[in-house]
Amino acid sequence: MEGYSYGMVGLGVMGRNLLYNIADNGFSIAGFDLDVAKVKELEAEATSEMKIKGISSLEDFVSALESPRKIILMVPAGKPVDAVLESLTPLLSKGDIVIDAGNSYFEDTNRRIADLASKNLHFMGMGVSGGEKGARFGPSIMPGGDLEAFRLLQPMLEAISAKVDNEACTAYMGKGSAGNYVKMVHNGIEYAIMQLISEAYDLLKRGAKLNNDELYQVFKEWNSGEMNSFLIEITRDIFQQKDSLTDGYLLDQILDKAGAKGTGKWTSEQAMEIGVSIPTIDIAVTSRILSAYKEERVCASKLYSDREITNPEDTKAFIKEVGDALYLATLISYAQGLALLVKASEEYGFEIPLKDVVKIWRGGCIIRSVLLEKFYLAYTQDPHLSNILLDKDISVIVKEKISSLRKTAAYAASNGIPSLGLQTALGYFDAYTTASLPVNLIQAQRDYFGAHTYQRTDREGVFHTSWQSLNQ
Amino acid sequence: MEGYSYGMVGLGVMGRNLLYNIADNGFSIAGFDLDVAKVKELEAEATSEMKIKGISSLEDFVSALESPRKIILMVPAGKPVDAVLESLTPLLSKGDIVIDAGNSYFEDTNRRIADLASKNLHFMGMGVSGGEKGARFGPSIMPGGDLEAFRLLQPMLEAISAKVDNEACTAYMGKGSAGNYVKMVHNGIEYAIMQLISEAYDLLKRGAKLNNDELYQVFKEWNSGEMNSFLIEITRDIFQQKDSLTDGYLLDQILDKAGAKGTGKWTSEQAMEIGVSIPTIDIAVTSRILSAYKEERVCASKLYSDREITNPEDTKAFIKEVGDALYLATLISYAQGLALLVKASEEYGFEIPLKDVVKIWRGGCIIRSVLLEKFYLAYTQDPHLSNILLDKDISVIVKEKISSLRKTAAYAASNGIPSLGLQTALGYFDAYTTASLPVNLIQAQRDYFGAHTYQRTDREGVFHTSWQSLNQ
Repeated sequence: MEGYSYGMVGLGVMGRNLLYNIADNGFSIAGFDLDVAKVKELEAEATSEMKIKGISSLEDFVSALESPRKIILMVPAGKPVDAVLESLTPLLSKGDIVIDAGNSYFEDTNRRIADLASKNLHFMGMGVSGGEKGARFGPSIMPGGDLEAFRLLQPMLEAISAKVDNEACTAYMGKGSAGNYVKMVHNGIEYAIMQLISEAYDLLKRGAKLNNDELYQVFKEWNSGEMNSFLIEITRDIFQQKDSLTDGYLLDQILDKAGAKGTGKWTSEQAMEIGVSIPTIDIAVTSRILSAYKEERVCASKLYSDREITNPEDTKAFIKEVGDALYLATLISYAQGLALLVKASEEYGFEIPLKDVVKIWRGGCIIRSVLLEKFYLAYTQDPHLSNILLDKDISVIVKEKISSLRKTAAYAASNGIPSLGLQTALGYFDAYTTASLPVNLIQAQRDYFGAHTYQRTDREGVFHTSWQSLNQ
Repeated sequence: MEGYSYGMVGLGVMGRNLLYNIADNGFSIAGFDLDVAKVKELEAEATSEMKIKGISSLEDFVSALESPRKIILMVPAGKPVDAVLESLTPLLSKGDIVIDAGNSYFEDTNRRIADLASKNLHFMGMGVSGGEKGARFGPSIMPGGDLEAFRLLQPMLEAISAKVDNEACTAYMGKGSAGNYVKMVHNGIEYAIMQLISEAYDLLKRGAKLNNDELYQVFKEWNSGEMNSFLIEITRDIFQQKDSLTDGYLLDQILDKAGAKGTGKWTSEQAMEIGVSIPTIDIAVTSRILSAYKEERVCASKLYSDREITNPEDTKAFIKEVGDALYLATLISYAQGLALLVKASEEYGFEIPLKDVVKIWRGGCIIRSVLLEKFYLAYTQDPHLSNILLDKDISVIVKEKISSLRKTAAYAASNGIPSLGLQTALGYFDAYTTASLPVNLIQAQRDYFGAHTYQRTDREGVFHTSWQSLNQ
């Protein structure tokens, strides 16, 4: 044959699954891994229809590809990507395309784009979401970078991605490292939603005293309506998963110390860096950190053991309120993340099409949700919306749910059930919708002790006052 | 004469004031600035007792100092410091000491320490807090770095610093860039407290409908008791400051868009980097960011104009509750910042003496407060306390105030008065004191969609489950 159309470097679970997905869609693809066992496994588990080949020599792998070569990297972010590029690029020819499908930091991608461009090669950052199963059967794919290179990949990407209403969940996300950036923010939103769901779980479990079977019913119902989404769906499943080592439910045996891979942290740091407020994502990151302090928490819980939780009066009404609060706080988390994309697009010249972002998040990815349909409509009407909370149709939903978020937040605060995600979603909404914040006082303080100056509401300019101390 | 004991580079307000303070205490000191006007001003405003000299030639300045030279830099952080060092170091001799008294980033200080060490010079990072007035009449001073070099400065630092119970508000903060690090966290805590005070102001103004005169009375009373602190004191003054351009109070004319110089952001980024949870500091940073979106907030406030604030039933009780909430949330903000110092000390080998940190923060600095006396006692009893919330005496205070914080947070949530600082202080406390968080669910979700594995509560090891989907 005349050479494989695609190449995949890295045959871990994600790489292998994405490769099979590409092959399933009729594209020939060679897979490379230094690990011979993984290479063998690749061919052993393939179907006879797939035009694939596993290769453990990089030279042979590169030679096996048609020109221009289109090589996807699915290796861990950071040094492994650079290591692969160092071995790979000397073997490539002008016009070849390397696509990094891992969760690389966008600034690393910028550096690599410049580096490969100096060798007449294309480098693209491409976010892929959907986990192992998504990679195999249809992920959401967020490519960015050189538009010409993207056009060469587009038919394959559209074939392998998830579909919603027959539309592919992939689109060009913008210039440079836009693909990585969009995926980073996707993951930040994912952190926030997972935090919010865990709080709803806690409120229903410790507040309304629901057991796992009842929680399953609640999440099943939530997933069948306006809250339908991947994360609600798998949470429903989780409540029914039996433990293979004990008699009970698996969830009750899992240690409450969260891991993290860093994309949430990057999102928070980026938001601070370019001046966007995303407190619900921040709090999700810091809550995972706090969860790791298990031993201290156990000590502290003994010292402060006098907390009592009052059951809600009407369980059914409480469940409805918590659901509405979760729904709205989730919406507000998306609003924060999307506002970050708007600013980043300006700041870095990405030209991110927000409408396409929410369109391709509707399927395949971890944060897919029927709610995104409404955002898609909002951006269709106004592609330059700075914050989805400013959309009129969205505001109708917000107004419908806001009293539930208030009640739930107040209940949590009164009863000592931690709910930093819900609280910050509400606090963000309240601050964002307040014309005059008490920040005038902060500016007065800064000018008082540090002569940092202030602006006035009634005239232009920058002012400083010699504030009068009232000490004797 | 045989040469000036000290040198000061940078004769802006802070540099000049610190120089006068040093001279007031009987030390001779030469001041350098390229700006001839500033040099002239320095001598013109000095008293006849001061042994000082202003010099605008760097060579003459260096020659005028006794050996080993002790040169303090008070120039803006970042490139200006490097620019000064580039000109200055070739003129210095083995054993000379350069002390950076600005808000430099600790990693820059590490780099400069190594760079100057290679030239047989000492470089120290030294935090100085207290604003212009503090610099002039007694700041809190946080030096770190080479212990031998510190010993040479110690008598002068103790003379010029603020005093509390006849004890100087300066002490050795630890190795390397510990001085800058402690100052950075000081500023992070400062951000949090200012945010909290602004929220209390908003609650009393829009909730209890207090006017500036009434607010003055409240803050005056607060400052006369257990809440006595610099920031409460100046807030009291601010409520009485008349506007020179209109008839009313100045505060009401100040625009609610906060500025920031970056030390708060550094604190949040650092905490995420080394895995410490400081949500109230994070939220203070992000709230300043949000305040800058004034035009969007005005738009949003019109779209969501249907918010109504219910007055609290009993104004006097409400004021007391808000005061107690502010007090406790402030305490919790210190707890977060101090916990960051504990972890940073381990992480970077600073060996920060927490007891000395809170001791020297009792006077001179922006976050000075009688509350620090209680922390000083706590660290005196246990210098290795990982979190001050774990101290028994502190826990008594917390338990006394916690119901007020709950009530205030619930009131704010119910009435749409943004209070992200109060909410996150409470949320942090509730999460920190909860033995079992709902984070088991997050770990289940991560394992479900990403095979990220989880730990169990009942046995050692790392586990992965093939979670069962309940879709048909």
